[in-house]
Amino acid sequence: MSTPARRRSVPPRSPRPKPAAWTYGYADYAKVLRAAGSRDALTSLLGGKGSNLAEMTSLGLPVPPGFVITTEACKAFLAGRGRFPDGMWDEVLAALRALERRTGKRLGDPKRPLLVSVRSGARFSMPGMMDTVLNLGMTDEVAAALAAEAGERFAQDAYRRFVQMFGRVVLGVPDEHFEAPLAECRRARSATNDSELPAEDLRAVTARFLDVVQQHTGKPFPRDPLQQLRLAIEAVFRSWNGKRAFDYRKAAGIPHDLGTAVNVVAMVFGNMGQDSATGVATTRDVTTGQNEIEGDFLVDAQGEDVVSGTRTPRPIADLAAWRPKLWREFRRWCQLLEKHYRDVQDVEFTIERGTLWMLQTRSAKRTAQAAIRIAVDLATEKRITRQQAVLRVQPEHVDYFLHPQFDAEARRAAKAGGALLTTALNVSPGAAIGQAVFDADTAERLARQENKKVVLVRPETKPDDVHGLLASQGVVTSRGGRTSHAALVARQFGKPAVVGAMQLEVDPVARQLTGPGGIVVREGDWLSLDGTTGEVFVGQLPTVVPDVADPHLVRLLGWADAERRLGVQANADYPRDAERARRFGAEGIGLCRTEHMFFEAERLPIVQAMILARDEGERRQHLDRLLPLQRSDFAGLFRAMDGLPVTIRLIDPPLHEFLPDHDKLVRETTSLQTKLSLHAGDEPAMAQQLASDERLLHKLDELREQNPMLGLRGVRLGIHMPDLVRMQVRAIFEAACDCAADGIDVHPKVMIPLTATSVELQVERQVLEAEARAVMKERGRKVKYLFGTMIEIPRAALTADRLAEHAEFFSFGTNDLTQTTFGISRDDAETGFLQEYLQKGILADNPFATIDRDGVGQLMRLAVERGRAARPKLDCGICGEHGGDPRTIAFCHEIGLDYVSCSPFRLPVARLAAAHAALRANAAR
Amino acid sequence: MSTPARRRSVPPRSPRPKPAAWTYGYADYAKVLRAAGSRDALTSLLGGKGSNLAEMTSLGLPVPPGFVITTEACKAFLAGRGRFPDGMWDEVLAALRALERRTGKRLGDPKRPLLVSVRSGARFSMPGMMDTVLNLGMTDEVAAALAAEAGERFAQDAYRRFVQMFGRVVLGVPDEHFEAPLAECRRARSATNDSELPAEDLRAVTARFLDVVQQHTGKPFPRDPLQQLRLAIEAVFRSWNGKRAFDYRKAAGIPHDLGTAVNVVAMVFGNMGQDSATGVATTRDVTTGQNEIEGDFLVDAQGEDVVSGTRTPRPIADLAAWRPKLWREFRRWCQLLEKHYRDVQDVEFTIERGTLWMLQTRSAKRTAQAAIRIAVDLATEKRITRQQAVLRVQPEHVDYFLHPQFDAEARRAAKAGGALLTTALNVSPGAAIGQAVFDADTAERLARQENKKVVLVRPETKPDDVHGLLASQGVVTSRGGRTSHAALVARQFGKPAVVGAMQLEVDPVARQLTGPGGIVVREGDWLSLDGTTGEVFVGQLPTVVPDVADPHLVRLLGWADAERRLGVQANADYPRDAERARRFGAEGIGLCRTEHMFFEAERLPIVQAMILARDEGERRQHLDRLLPLQRSDFAGLFRAMDGLPVTIRLIDPPLHEFLPDHDKLVRETTSLQTKLSLHAGDEPAMAQQLASDERLLHKLDELREQNPMLGLRGVRLGIHMPDLVRMQVRAIFEAACDCAADGIDVHPKVMIPLTATSVELQVERQVLEAEARAVMKERGRKVKYLFGTMIEIPRAALTADRLAEHAEFFSFGTNDLTQTTFGISRDDAETGFLQEYLQKGILADNPFATIDRDGVGQLMRLAVERGRAARPKLDCGICGEHGGDPRTIAFCHEIGLDYVSCSPFRLPVARLAAAHAALRANAAR
Repeated sequence: MSTPARRRSVPPRSPRPKPAAWTYGYADYAKVLRAAGSRDALTSLLGGKGSNLAEMTSLGLPVPPGFVITTEACKAFLAGRGRFPDGMWDEVLAALRALERRTGKRLGDPKRPLLVSVRSGARFSMPGMMDTVLNLGMTDEVAAALAAEAGERFAQDAYRRFVQMFGRVVLGVPDEHFEAPLAECRRARSATNDSELPAEDLRAVTARFLDVVQQHTGKPFPRDPLQQLRLAIEAVFRSWNGKRAFDYRKAAGIPHDLGTAVNVVAMVFGNMGQDSATGVATTRDVTTGQNEIEGDFLVDAQGEDVVSGTRTPRPIADLAAWRPKLWREFRRWCQLLEKHYRDVQDVEFTIERGTLWMLQTRSAKRTAQAAIRIAVDLATEKRITRQQAVLRVQPEHVDYFLHPQFDAEARRAAKAGGALLTTALNVSPGAAIGQAVFDADTAERLARQENKKVVLVRPETKPDDVHGLLASQGVVTSRGGRTSHAALVARQFGKPAVVGAMQLEVDPVARQLTGPGGIVVREGDWLSLDGTTGEVFVGQLPTVVPDVADPHLVRLLGWADAERRLGVQANADYPRDAERARRFGAEGIGLCRTEHMFFEAERLPIVQAMILARDEGERRQHLDRLLPLQRSDFAGLFRAMDGLPVTIRLIDPPLHEFLPDHDKLVRETTSLQTKLSLHAGDEPAMAQQLASDERLLHKLDELREQNPMLGLRGVRLGIHMPDLVRMQVRAIFEAACDCAADGIDVHPKVMIPLTATSVELQVERQVLEAEARAVMKERGRKVKYLFGTMIEIPRAALTADRLAEHAEFFSFGTNDLTQTTFGISRDDAETGFLQEYLQKGILADNPFATIDRDGVGQLMRLAVERGRAARPKLDCGICGEHGGDPRTIAFCHEIGLDYVSCSPFRLPVARLAAAHAALRANAAR
Repeated sequence: MSTPARRRSVPPRSPRPKPAAWTYGYADYAKVLRAAGSRDALTSLLGGKGSNLAEMTSLGLPVPPGFVITTEACKAFLAGRGRFPDGMWDEVLAALRALERRTGKRLGDPKRPLLVSVRSGARFSMPGMMDTVLNLGMTDEVAAALAAEAGERFAQDAYRRFVQMFGRVVLGVPDEHFEAPLAECRRARSATNDSELPAEDLRAVTARFLDVVQQHTGKPFPRDPLQQLRLAIEAVFRSWNGKRAFDYRKAAGIPHDLGTAVNVVAMVFGNMGQDSATGVATTRDVTTGQNEIEGDFLVDAQGEDVVSGTRTPRPIADLAAWRPKLWREFRRWCQLLEKHYRDVQDVEFTIERGTLWMLQTRSAKRTAQAAIRIAVDLATEKRITRQQAVLRVQPEHVDYFLHPQFDAEARRAAKAGGALLTTALNVSPGAAIGQAVFDADTAERLARQENKKVVLVRPETKPDDVHGLLASQGVVTSRGGRTSHAALVARQFGKPAVVGAMQLEVDPVARQLTGPGGIVVREGDWLSLDGTTGEVFVGQLPTVVPDVADPHLVRLLGWADAERRLGVQANADYPRDAERARRFGAEGIGLCRTEHMFFEAERLPIVQAMILARDEGERRQHLDRLLPLQRSDFAGLFRAMDGLPVTIRLIDPPLHEFLPDHDKLVRETTSLQTKLSLHAGDEPAMAQQLASDERLLHKLDELREQNPMLGLRGVRLGIHMPDLVRMQVRAIFEAACDCAADGIDVHPKVMIPLTATSVELQVERQVLEAEARAVMKERGRKVKYLFGTMIEIPRAALTADRLAEHAEFFSFGTNDLTQTTFGISRDDAETGFLQEYLQKGILADNPFATIDRDGVGQLMRLAVERGRAARPKLDCGICGEHGGDPRTIAFCHEIGLDYVSCSPFRLPVARLAAAHAALRANAAR
């Protein structure tokens, strides 16, 4: 749900005055806020954890005392090649002395020893990516003092943990050297976890650990607590440039030059016996969004025990029964934090001998469902404004409500059980379960006749496969990218889809697929696929179905609609799509691809006959048969969109897409020729078949192009075969007049695809408007309509002023515009070099998913400006796949488009994204 | 030799005051010049012929008196659907009266009858395309009067000619109806031409003609001279929109809305006996450019006899012997005209009973060779400046010197072998080879639809044949002279032509020609004709390219070089090309396509093995074998270009271009599979073949792309297969270092193709510069080089500022840039819808021939501006095919490119075009 590749926004790195100090105590919040200048600058300086602890301290929460070494110190350390900046160590010592005064303990003191934790904490959360050392300050003497105070076992446990952690993190001893003696000890005691080991075992283990360190580093373990502290701070600083952290930042788009702060905090212990505990919680339920504290805790444990899962924690609600007073205090602090931060918090706490300590707070991660409920609830509780609530929900969160999802628990179990077959491109979200089927006809037969749930598995899909795809629960292909045929059709119809699963070898002939490790899935075997994550499982996973009528979602989208300026329309080819689109909030149809109607099973033969016609007369006959079919399609759209615009794009694809596969025909004819030459078989029948195949092949060869994407299609086809587009325009206007006669408020928009020159538009407009007028005259009725063009060729954008003389609207076909502007064939590239480019970082984003602002976006901006200069009221929209992408929607808002159009299932996402765009633009103003 | 598609420049058609009158007398030159405002406007108003006759009159030349009806009258006539504009006829009658006063004769007067010619005359010369009527005013009475004055035969001849011409031109009676009786008469008299027919025969023929007209038109021949005049003027007006004229204007790029003027001139007769003559001449030799009057005349003949070629005329030089005084006078007028017009003139004259009349002058059409010599001579004679001389020669004229001529040795051998069919008039130079075709329609069909090379063979050509002539490689006629229709048109359009080949009997009906000795050439047989020597050979002769060391050309190009600002470089892939390029004036290599080297027969198997390599190691081995080959290629280029830059483009095309044809492999494998399944043949051998084919097919399928033009090629290939481009860069720098060691001054430029993003460039530059540095270190030598990129993707142009951060030069690859900017696949479109677009006028020009200023040009301009903003010294050039197109070169000058690069054969053209661009830009400033 996050967008790892996006670069986080960082305050401008203008040279600012060096902060007054390298360290700040948590109690210095007011002072450091003044020094930093803003809360944001403070977070940069102290890191997320440090600034929160300081802020929590200032709010009066029981935070263990401590201090922060700033990110500036880290940067100076790294820039100085591993030397602390001048004065820093002295400041650390002074801060330590203050800490000792506050706690009444001293580091290394054999009577009242202070133990501290040393933790990283950068501006952006990078969980687990950098280093932490707990229980620092431990020596033999300190252990003895702790034993006297809290028992031998506690002391030995803390000692053992410290040596292991310090050894691994600071001294670089591989953890397996420590784990081996410990495991040996557990075996000897038949213990399942370390808490069952007695003090003497732990003491022996610690002794072994100290030997391990001596052996591994060639030096004795450092016994001086100040040396321990110095080494630990250096290790945390260095971990900023560790491989893990570097890779994480790269993936998450976090700049590499921020540095980490270091938090030195007095240790508090949840493992000081049965009146101690430690836990984590969120201030509300981050799965459902319900307003209930949710979390876990463990009695007599340290924090890492909760996270590591070695012991099963108790639900946070048990705290009320276990220690009612502490529970009330904890709840109060949770409410205070939520109120202060105006968001759900994720907190860590420890109870040391009956005293509650709050160790950390941060904004809680949440599911899509929770995000929406929490935002709406917070606004209802007046904690945030409606606008803030709208901004709190990521557009992709909304997508969740439109598709069934796998049960989270079942998914975890399936993965643990090895049922995950592969993870590939998540091109159409939602969960689907069905029996694997390897061709479209079988899929349709099993689904329609035998009422089976099927998943279509193909190397790739073609227009011929659409009926099978529609009959399936979902589709998996081993080839193809985000804009492959399978992906486009699946998104269009809301079918979950995973494509480009290159690890799967799909064999349609043997009717099976082979996955990694030789797993074979045969026809009829069950598959579960998750188009949201791109995962494909063997077997059936249980699903849960969210509801788009979820009242929180409905309220949130209502608030979003009030904020957005962009209109939201749908790409819909059939009346049933149009109806759904309207339910999802469509304010019109931004793109109806008329040729999709041609692929329907009962129509394709007519279309093929029309293409193969020997003369104009024969072609005319077949067109006459198509006319009533198209008219009824359009009438359905007009009815569904009563009162709203319906944008109908005239035929776009090259004609050979409607004809059978060329290679297959070559194989058939060659096979027949060979057989005939060998006199093998029923010669007259074969000869007849050959003649018919050869005629078809001849026509295909005639239509075949080296680069069909740049060939005879779009407006070029309309100019080349005027009868075809005239038929389409006739169908549009006959339907419009008929609907208008029935009282429907029709707003047809006739759209010309692939325009490159204004003359094309001028010529087509003349021909088509003549037909439209003729129809309206025949029907004795006038309907208002608009004539416009797609902008999907660079030249069209560059000459938009001239195009606007002949077009009343522009619609950006950003799929093709991206192809031509980049010179990339998406069908070829998305499984090929484009993937390589994304992996190698040559492209930050897939330009077919999110608009390329610098190139394609530049052309769009220019086209809008020039188009409107020539025709101020020019209506501008986008109808490419990008129309449902939030970042693209933000760009469309920015350049002043009137609307975006996307698949019906993306509409709620688009509504929210459009609101975000408007709110952010207002905020920036 | 000209550029027919170019639109002639026409003065701006701003509404100008209607001229004071519809007609002007030739003697009114000063008055009409004042009325028109400029000489140019005057030419628009009176047409070329009319304004010249008026101007000649004003210069004192003996011009027969006459008047012009203006082009405005014609336009008003055509706009008024065939009615003379108000007042025009009255003005004509007044002008006629003035003419009658000047000549002392009257139209239709039975005593002193005036005969006039009625001729078209448009702004631009369109020889033979529009109508002319001579001897107008003839009636029975007039004939009788003429007989009394100049003899019966003269009178009857004039009468017969008039009826035939008026009948054909004005009344639309097909000429064969007139030719038949005449031929019959010739047969009866055994006469070879009409001049041998006695008066009584002519009288009888005229009577037959009058019957023919009556039969054909259903009305008697008009006997009223004024009615004749009115009808003739109307016919001339209408002929402006005749099919012939329309097609000619289309081919020559002359606007269709100019209209023609009509000249009404007192007839003078070259056929009044043995002291009369008629002729045409050019003031210099328009074939070679020599400063000698060149032309033909016929004694006792009318002008049409010279042009039609029915009688073979005498060379103009004979005039000196025949009438020395007239010759001296004629020569004086020629010199005066040339001096006045500062250009070679094409004049018509008639001698009537010993008096010389100058009937027409116009700038003479000339061969390329002549154009250059004349321009250089005129400049040397100080008649024009050097700059004017440079501007006088069209860039395409220079092309002549670069086009193939027949190989001298082969020519000798052909002659020895009896392949020389005939030698006749060499009227338009150059060699042409093609299959004989005997009519224009067939020529056009074969050439345009079947892509055949044809030579048009006709007894003579007429304006109706122009389309066939344009479609042919060259033309041969058995009749006609140096100024025959075929000769004029062929010269105009740079088609080699041999005319007047009287030894050949051309039979268009039997579709064959019979040569001396009974050699028969049938349709489809090959002919080779040499328009420079006038030779026609049977069969196909090999050609060579002529020497560009022609001294006039060398001088002219030297003057051009002094004027141009654009550099001129060559596209050359091989050392031999580079050497030629340097001879032709290349200032460097602007594009070396390294992959062309891969296609050489001995290398392709290595390249294929490299592509099919199973692993990196195997690939590396094959690359190691390619390295020395590429190195030696590059060394050759550096040596040839010592001191000049050599721009080397790294591999560009998709890899499958180096592998066998996919369809063929599919057929082969299917055939083998079928045979194996039928157990037909040597199964083990077939199985082995099948396995090998299938492996290749598998690889091909892997590499195959739906739109290879937009696929894995160019820089994408370099990033995908870095070893390949590293090998190329190694070869470049090893060659450069080795050459430098030999004292060669090397300037390599490494060019990355198909860049779309600056990161591609950044990444490639890093990899490739590392390799370059490694090589230079190994070789212990440094060479200066530049790293740059092609700009051939719209996104590259749009982000040129960022690209320029990593590129030291840009080179516009306008072929691909046009494809992507227009979204047109050239390979598919140029034989498909692009032709349709050009025919339908949707595109004015083929954007792959001449740069599309509005779209592609806009991107180029923007890329130069942004690139130079980021890197002021950015070196910018063009290396697409457009680089040799004069109009594109003008554009490149305009947007400030540093150089153009084109094929070696286009270099002289480019040098001249670049000079034109500079001179025109200076003139416009």
